[in-house]
Amino acid sequence: MEIFYSKDIDGTTIRLNPEESAHCVKVLRHREGDEIAVMDGAGTLLWCRLDDASPKEAVATVVRREPGFGGHPYRLTLAVCPTKNMDRYEWMAEKATEFGVDAIVPVIGERSERKVCKTERLERIVLSAAKQSLKAAVPVVAQPLSVMDFIASFASGASAPVSGAASVSGSGALPLGGASADGGEPLKLIAYCFEGEKLSIREALEASSQRDVVVLIGPEGDFSPREVAAAMKAGFKPVHLGASRLRTETAALASAAALYYKYI
Amino acid sequence: MEIFYSKDIDGTTIRLNPEESAHCVKVLRHREGDEIAVMDGAGTLLWCRLDDASPKEAVATVVRREPGFGGHPYRLTLAVCPTKNMDRYEWMAEKATEFGVDAIVPVIGERSERKVCKTERLERIVLSAAKQSLKAAVPVVAQPLSVMDFIASFASGASAPVSGAASVSGSGALPLGGASADGGEPLKLIAYCFEGEKLSIREALEASSQRDVVVLIGPEGDFSPREVAAAMKAGFKPVHLGASRLRTETAALASAAALYYKYI
Repeated sequence: MEIFYSKDIDGTTIRLNPEESAHCVKVLRHREGDEIAVMDGAGTLLWCRLDDASPKEAVATVVRREPGFGGHPYRLTLAVCPTKNMDRYEWMAEKATEFGVDAIVPVIGERSERKVCKTERLERIVLSAAKQSLKAAVPVVAQPLSVMDFIASFASGASAPVSGAASVSGSGALPLGGASADGGEPLKLIAYCFEGEKLSIREALEASSQRDVVVLIGPEGDFSPREVAAAMKAGFKPVHLGASRLRTETAALASAAALYYKYI
Repeated sequence: MEIFYSKDIDGTTIRLNPEESAHCVKVLRHREGDEIAVMDGAGTLLWCRLDDASPKEAVATVVRREPGFGGHPYRLTLAVCPTKNMDRYEWMAEKATEFGVDAIVPVIGERSERKVCKTERLERIVLSAAKQSLKAAVPVVAQPLSVMDFIASFASGASAPVSGAASVSGSGALPLGGASADGGEPLKLIAYCFEGEKLSIREALEASSQRDVVVLIGPEGDFSPREVAAAMKAGFKPVHLGASRLRTETAALASAAALYYKYI
């Protein structure tokens, strides 16, 4: 099964962009009258009839809508410091999408070696991973912000929307802080390496009925004490990820897997 | 903390190979008298005093041994069909090592597009990942064999050892089939995409007290019905990995994560 992607949906008429049109018509050789599946990136799969098999702008008519296609029964925001080597971060974004993630937020820590993170490539990667793993919702890739600003967005009363990846997300903005989608406060977890009594991420997830989960993962050099203190104050719960020393990108994926397994 | 690796251990005298010696003496600038940590690849960390800071063959004396360093409370064999793109397989080997895996067996399925798999690079990757994640045991990378031969190695009475990665494994041979390390039959799981009533891998792991676990993961085109039938006959339990369509390498990692979380 091959899923196409379009944001150009007007009532029951869908247009594919040149890249998707070429793939549909030239590579997969779809012809007028064929049934094709198109995702809107926001969670709905649209079963369509191809009306115009143009390799530059294919046009199709929506026959049936399937909301929540390939969805998961939770909302996960992974706020992860970019790794020195961006390949590792991109890999994490791809794999987290396969498991199920709703937003990936590149956060820059005080000890981050990498202070910049371009999101265009990440957006392409999560779109491709969503299509490949048959999910009609594409994770939002947020614009980078500092760990402190990310934490501050959860301070009581704060609800400043941080601009997401408008071209992909559907909503165009990612409400990072404040109330969660279902009105309650999200379960906010921070994984760091400092010693101390902590729950494992599995225990923390099992102890909560909150399906809106935020996990904050630090850089190679860990969070600064100031960042940890600010996170505690904002209600983040410290968790550990077990005895293994996991790289940043592996820790992020381990978090996605833990939530995935809670609802498997 | 930096861990060196040596197989050249004679009583309390350890010699590092030229690559490790150069890293120890030229890059990290260790001098005679320094304390260094050396892993034997079989699970023991050796705290040593550097006696000869030769950049070509450093020599050290063992001061203290720490068996089971960075170990995990289970034994996991991941038998995974190589992916078309070997980068993805190598990534899986690295990440599985971070979580904890004892043997990686490249198995060639009847529907595998990739029929060959060179293990030299994989061995270097798991050694590097073990060092990086502070584990003194390096996973064995077995020589590739067919899915059918792998399954046959578990048939009752079979105990043919399949040659492992002698240069890294310590044991030089990986007893694939037959009895497990603790004498019992390992828990053998097969993940495949055919429809049908199956436990999730989490449920299957939770229902078993067996700490010796084998997970068989198929190629992009899934196992053949013949392979699935042979696995059932050999006592493999079918499991699913949840609603998400995971790539081969992600499925392997999801399995490693499931076992990791059982004992976290």
